[in-house]
Amino acid sequence: MTETALRVIPLGGLGEIGKNMMALEYGNDIVVIDSGVLFPSEEMPGIDFAIPDISYLKENSSRVRAILITHGHEDHIGALPYVLSELNVPVYASRLTHGLISVKLKEFGLLKDARLNVVEPHSPFKIGAFKAEFFRVCHSIPDAMGIALQTPLGTVIHTGDFKIDHTPADGKSTDFAALSQLTGGGVLLLLSDSTYAESEGYTESEQVVGQALEREIIGAEGRVLVATFASLISRMQQVIDAAVKCDRKVAVIGRSMINNVKMATNMGYLKAPAGTIIPLREASNLPLNKIVILATGAQGEPTSALVRISNGDHQDVEIVPGDTVIISASPIPGNETLVSRTIDNLYRQKARVLHSKIALVHVHGHASREELKMMLAMIKPKFFVPVHGEYRHLVAHAEIACSMGVTEANVMVLEDGDVLELTADHGTIVDRIPAGHVYVNGRRMWGDDGKVLAERGRLAREGVVTVVVSVDASSGEVVNAPSLLSSGFVELDESADLLERTSEEAQIALEQPNGRRLELDELRALVSNSVSKFLYDETRRRPKVLTHIQEV
Amino acid sequence: MTETALRVIPLGGLGEIGKNMMALEYGNDIVVIDSGVLFPSEEMPGIDFAIPDISYLKENSSRVRAILITHGHEDHIGALPYVLSELNVPVYASRLTHGLISVKLKEFGLLKDARLNVVEPHSPFKIGAFKAEFFRVCHSIPDAMGIALQTPLGTVIHTGDFKIDHTPADGKSTDFAALSQLTGGGVLLLLSDSTYAESEGYTESEQVVGQALEREIIGAEGRVLVATFASLISRMQQVIDAAVKCDRKVAVIGRSMINNVKMATNMGYLKAPAGTIIPLREASNLPLNKIVILATGAQGEPTSALVRISNGDHQDVEIVPGDTVIISASPIPGNETLVSRTIDNLYRQKARVLHSKIALVHVHGHASREELKMMLAMIKPKFFVPVHGEYRHLVAHAEIACSMGVTEANVMVLEDGDVLELTADHGTIVDRIPAGHVYVNGRRMWGDDGKVLAERGRLAREGVVTVVVSVDASSGEVVNAPSLLSSGFVELDESADLLERTSEEAQIALEQPNGRRLELDELRALVSNSVSKFLYDETRRRPKVLTHIQEV
Repeated sequence: MTETALRVIPLGGLGEIGKNMMALEYGNDIVVIDSGVLFPSEEMPGIDFAIPDISYLKENSSRVRAILITHGHEDHIGALPYVLSELNVPVYASRLTHGLISVKLKEFGLLKDARLNVVEPHSPFKIGAFKAEFFRVCHSIPDAMGIALQTPLGTVIHTGDFKIDHTPADGKSTDFAALSQLTGGGVLLLLSDSTYAESEGYTESEQVVGQALEREIIGAEGRVLVATFASLISRMQQVIDAAVKCDRKVAVIGRSMINNVKMATNMGYLKAPAGTIIPLREASNLPLNKIVILATGAQGEPTSALVRISNGDHQDVEIVPGDTVIISASPIPGNETLVSRTIDNLYRQKARVLHSKIALVHVHGHASREELKMMLAMIKPKFFVPVHGEYRHLVAHAEIACSMGVTEANVMVLEDGDVLELTADHGTIVDRIPAGHVYVNGRRMWGDDGKVLAERGRLAREGVVTVVVSVDASSGEVVNAPSLLSSGFVELDESADLLERTSEEAQIALEQPNGRRLELDELRALVSNSVSKFLYDETRRRPKVLTHIQEV
Repeated sequence: MTETALRVIPLGGLGEIGKNMMALEYGNDIVVIDSGVLFPSEEMPGIDFAIPDISYLKENSSRVRAILITHGHEDHIGALPYVLSELNVPVYASRLTHGLISVKLKEFGLLKDARLNVVEPHSPFKIGAFKAEFFRVCHSIPDAMGIALQTPLGTVIHTGDFKIDHTPADGKSTDFAALSQLTGGGVLLLLSDSTYAESEGYTESEQVVGQALEREIIGAEGRVLVATFASLISRMQQVIDAAVKCDRKVAVIGRSMINNVKMATNMGYLKAPAGTIIPLREASNLPLNKIVILATGAQGEPTSALVRISNGDHQDVEIVPGDTVIISASPIPGNETLVSRTIDNLYRQKARVLHSKIALVHVHGHASREELKMMLAMIKPKFFVPVHGEYRHLVAHAEIACSMGVTEANVMVLEDGDVLELTADHGTIVDRIPAGHVYVNGRRMWGDDGKVLAERGRLAREGVVTVVVSVDASSGEVVNAPSLLSSGFVELDESADLLERTSEEAQIALEQPNGRRLELDELRALVSNSVSKFLYDETRRRPKVLTHIQEV
């Protein structure tokens, strides 16, 4: 390692949407930005979520000085309980973000020992060789921050997740004046949000959504149900504002939504005249056209309030004709099918449904291409590393940077685990460290060898067949006919007959090697191969075969 | 059943994208339109595809007169081999569609006995009480047809899949003149494609794509690889035309693409100057800027040519810097993640990638809202049933029909299996028949009870643990410690220890019920519950537990 170089080490979020984590290292000091989770794709069945592999940070734990958090979304804070239980370093965050982190750490019993600090924008603080300063950006949650990090080699700007919204719901737009002061002396490196680097033009303002929600809520004849992300506090404010304007009350359902409304109201991030937010049981006494229900489930999550309602099995809320359901979110990649099905089922229940494909009831929180150009134009960095996005988003953002005049050799498309070493003039990838997924699965955490998931994929596609053969321990003779069970393989009514024939086939195979007594492993392979082959010939499928040889 | 009523029975394609099949019934005559497959979603692991449940047709086989096919896409013809082996009725299709069906039936060894008929547009033919006439529509395959069916109650128009394209790639646009002649006397019922009923405006013309492909292929510095659907014959023509203009040769890879190019060339649907289409091995002797490769894999299908190339493991084609890859398709719902990953990997191989999100290299083949209005305005039907689409698309299309003046009571949103009975004045849903998925899984076909898939889902999320307990047949005593195996449950390096402790736990459970000898079923339940409970306490997961009690 070059002692006077700055090392930029993405630990998550480059080449994927989620699990954001970036380490910056100079000499003896490591600062980490964000610590998020990745929500599981369909290829990670049963997984709760994935978190970054922090083995590099653990190996260098004495040098890790702080974790700076840009904003309170799960893909930026969700891994904190896991990271802090290994590395209890100070955490710096804005006020609302601090509130959300506190709720989370409390659930894990980690709040008491955590070293949390609230940071106001434009209040620089020293961390080892670095000086950090937060600046306000617009995103789909209040109190979102970008970070300016003064290093001995120059200033690094990390945008966090951002868009440029001159009329945001909370009135707090990206602070360009402050940003230009911070960057006045020239910027060494810009790390900028790439999630929407393929989208032309500008992302629409939250104001557009506010107006649409107001129009729909005020204009609705019956009850209105709005589903959105539990963290989308400014969206909830817009819904409450519209409800107040037409004298409706707001009831909240879904555990995470209820918790966040409570927290945000207590902290002053959500404002409602007294008596506006009421318990659901009170709402049931009101006329339908006096009710707005705020609910979780905008991603079609199977156990969420909205999905239960769409299936007609929510304990408290049942769709009646005349209800309007507004899905104020767009599907996260991979959730499209779940969301589609939820919408279909709401229509089947005779609700009127407004969603992002047919009405302006959602805008996302990320900068489109023209906004990314604006950021590049303002910062004029010497080096550029696109962050947050799948690989093609990083490439698209890199192309924008080149088109904006950043020297091509200074634009680096990194992936998680790449170690970029920057001097004042050069950037080189000098190393690769482990940076795969760590899967959280109930009480277990797994590394990224993928074997368990590969087995699950096989089981899902082909099912499983178990075979038990008993052999006499002293003689080595097979004691009785192989016994088989299956799951997820063929339909039950044909399974009995098929497995019986398979047992006969295995028995014939066992009879063949007359003479020599077989080792248990040989016996196992013989049975397993015979069963696999017979089942393939019969069904053209390859179930996982689990073979027990039982010595008795 | 009212003898003089027309019965409209969707057997597939209403409430889903795919598996299109519609039965129309008058008195003693049943006519079927289309016979397609549904490609499996992520929730149908291991399934090859689903086909319609035709038990109603089988029960009434003596009355089924014909199957009319609108066009040659898999979701309209793919189930024919299965249907015809149960019900060998005459099939009527346009020329190219007939060609595609023949290829398919030949693979299944069914061609010889099939009763296939080629139908030209505007050549009416009688089928029992019906008279059928095909009319030309635009779609993303040549020779796509709508069907006019004269019934004793009036004319029924089925649009098939269509869009209104005044400048299609094959020059054959929707034949409005013919359509207005057909509908001159008034139309009883319109069945119209709803797939894009949520999309505002007009679908863009194929001409736009042709121009974009030409620009990109002519302008590319290196080799160009175009991936699209194997059935998108007009798109292949556009690629060939562009290649000819800049003196490039075209090589084709991917089995289904090669077969279709051969068939379409022989039938005259694909035109290329002699020597334009060359084998891949000849292309390798040409300079890179003289090559276009047409490939399968535009949906990210794991074993397709494009995906192998993107992973760097195709036997013949390797990406080199300077290659341009054009993905001339948009992801079918559910395939988004696979397509995204393919694009990312192509970028990692240093290809330049153009896809539908960032370039005009694809338009779909379905009418948008304004085109649907045009169709309704031309046909002016008395009754309207939206077909082809998820439930919300049907609802959106029904709303368009109402807004266009169709009487609300005459607009029927049906789902598969609904039996709609139409008299000259009234429509009523009078019955429901079985119309779920029939899953094709290797050599097996399953009904729609969903049990096997539910088991597979459980296995995928939680994995499987098997337990074997041997008991002495005469004494009922447990002979040795329970023996366990697992798959897809926990990581291998912890699995041995965990399963050993589970075995000990199960043994303790088996020791408790002293005194009475347990029945085998009781023993099985005891072991199974003890193992499930212990594993849940340890891991907070619920693997499928398969328990063998082995009497020895």
